Amino acid sequence: MLGGQSVDGQALVLAVDIGGTKIAGALVGAEDGVLHCRTERPTRAAEGGQAVLDSLAEVVGRLRGLPEWPRVRLVGVGSAGPVDTLRGTVSPVNIPGWRDFPLLRELDRLTDGLPGVLTGDGVAMAAAEHWRGAARGFDNALCMVVSTGVGGGLVLGGALYPGPTGNAGHIGHITVDLEGEPCPCGSRGCLELLASGTAIARHAVAAGWRPRSGAAGAAAVAESARDGDPRALAAFARAGQALAAGIAATATLVELDVVVIGGGVAQSGDLLLGPLRARLAEYATLPYVRGLRIESAALATDAGLVGAAAAALWAVEK
Amino acid sequence: MLGGQSVDGQALVLAVDIGGTKIAGALVGAEDGVLHCRTERPTRAAEGGQAVLDSLAEVVGRLRGLPEWPRVRLVGVGSAGPVDTLRGTVSPVNIPGWRDFPLLRELDRLTDGLPGVLTGDGVAMAAAEHWRGAARGFDNALCMVVSTGVGGGLVLGGALYPGPTGNAGHIGHITVDLEGEPCPCGSRGCLELLASGTAIARHAVAAGWRPRSGAAGAAAVAESARDGDPRALAAFARAGQALAAGIAATATLVELDVVVIGGGVAQSGDLLLGPLRARLAEYATLPYVRGLRIESAALATDAGLVGAAAAALWAVEK
Repeated sequence: MLGGQSVDGQALVLAVDIGGTKIAGALVGAEDGVLHCRTERPTRAAEGGQAVLDSLAEVVGRLRGLPEWPRVRLVGVGSAGPVDTLRGTVSPVNIPGWRDFPLLRELDRLTDGLPGVLTGDGVAMAAAEHWRGAARGFDNALCMVVSTGVGGGLVLGGALYPGPTGNAGHIGHITVDLEGEPCPCGSRGCLELLASGTAIARHAVAAGWRPRSGAAGAAAVAESARDGDPRALAAFARAGQALAAGIAATATLVELDVVVIGGGVAQSGDLLLGPLRARLAEYATLPYVRGLRIESAALATDAGLVGAAAAALWAVEK
Repeated sequence: MLGGQSVDGQALVLAVDIGGTKIAGALVGAEDGVLHCRTERPTRAAEGGQAVLDSLAEVVGRLRGLPEWPRVRLVGVGSAGPVDTLRGTVSPVNIPGWRDFPLLRELDRLTDGLPGVLTGDGVAMAAAEHWRGAARGFDNALCMVVSTGVGGGLVLGGALYPGPTGNAGHIGHITVDLEGEPCPCGSRGCLELLASGTAIARHAVAAGWRPRSGAAGAAAVAESARDGDPRALAAFARAGQALAAGIAATATLVELDVVVIGGGVAQSGDLLLGPLRARLAEYATLPYVRGLRIESAALATDAGLVGAAAAALWAVEK
């Protein structure tokens, strides 16, 4: 890839992963996919669009200061969706200050003109898991992130399927509850509203749960659930049910061999995957979707960065 | 196609379309896609699997008696789903007597060994509309049938996308209501339960509507709705809302340029498409799904037959 240098002196991809909570960056080997010099900053979405851009500039600035920088040939950026890969812009639901934000143009400026490829974060995660993770060897896969939000990407017929504008697989914003609550995306009853970490914490708090200390986030709910707190367990059960319905819908629409689930909330393991697998048997009932495999992501939090690099390399070589 | 005879003496495809209400058959020109000698019989699903097979045999028998029969080279059969195109079997939700039913083997017997290709009826309809109908020229399309049941098929990246076992696009059995009623498919809250002709009639009757005469079907509800009956209008409005949520989910997952809707219920026109379009604006809100086109099917009730032939020709030439 990208000139075929030896692995030690191989070309590098500047990988950037933009999420609702943090912006991460790394230099990724174009040959071996190994991350070097990973760094991250809080996204600061609540402080407005300029604050998010400042965080991005800090991440890129740190990596530009490294001795390896001259070997960087390509920029791969994954972003929370929706994205528009045709125009190089992003409008992440969780970053209200960025709407039709010209992300590729800003990265061009921040890197003095390196070529850049934009990918939705769900598609990036799918690229990573299909290349080096739990979806390797499967021709039809949905790879999902369950963290602050819920995203995903598809592999169909053996290849990454980003769709015409790079948003295919964006499962967090399909409606699973017709009369459900309004979603920030403008729709209602979206899977993300029921199954994200934010939703899990909100559901637990509404049922009377409180964290023993610290923030009332999904990690604290998971801790209580492991101790048997029924309100915390119910919050994970509801998320698992909603995920089951959304995954079954996706398998019904495109036919899947495997579903790979990663992201911060998915790291709570069987707390989420247990109810999800049990409820999936109720929603995925047609012969061709029955027995669908659910796997934990293999690349954990690095999937976004590996995938941004993988999808960029895939796009320039296609 | 199939030898390139002149149109007058062209090769023919035996096309069969198996639905929950009727089984239709015709001889379709392999060159021009024109139907000859269309015939149909009631499916008789309530009388058990053998009765359905008898109906199929009658349809094939009538067509075998025609002077054109010696020009038939290929059998294309579209069936209500789910199907298994790898094994040649069908398990239509609306035909309980057929489970893993070896449809291709039976057609082989009924035609003395003509080669056969099995296609889900939704995929067949998509093949027909993409070849000769309202999806022509679009690279990414969902084509749907709204009649006794709700089915669909996908065109992705410019080509028919049947999926590995021929069931992709089976939108009638995605859950749009997480806690909805149980569906005969085993799941709950399926789109078909809310939007099929059966569902529309059931909803109207539950609200107190009765037909002025004849059967309490969707056609009678449509007649009352045209006269302004609020219970009939509400039944169509609810179906339109459910279809909007399911279509928005599909567009969110795979990115669509157009949605084509056919089938008996869709022939009620703006009674269904009016509420559907209005509610779609509420559910399809992300930038890449906003403004999605909704079109009426161009091939009406013949789409199943044209599509069974088209998909069979596509499969043997691929």
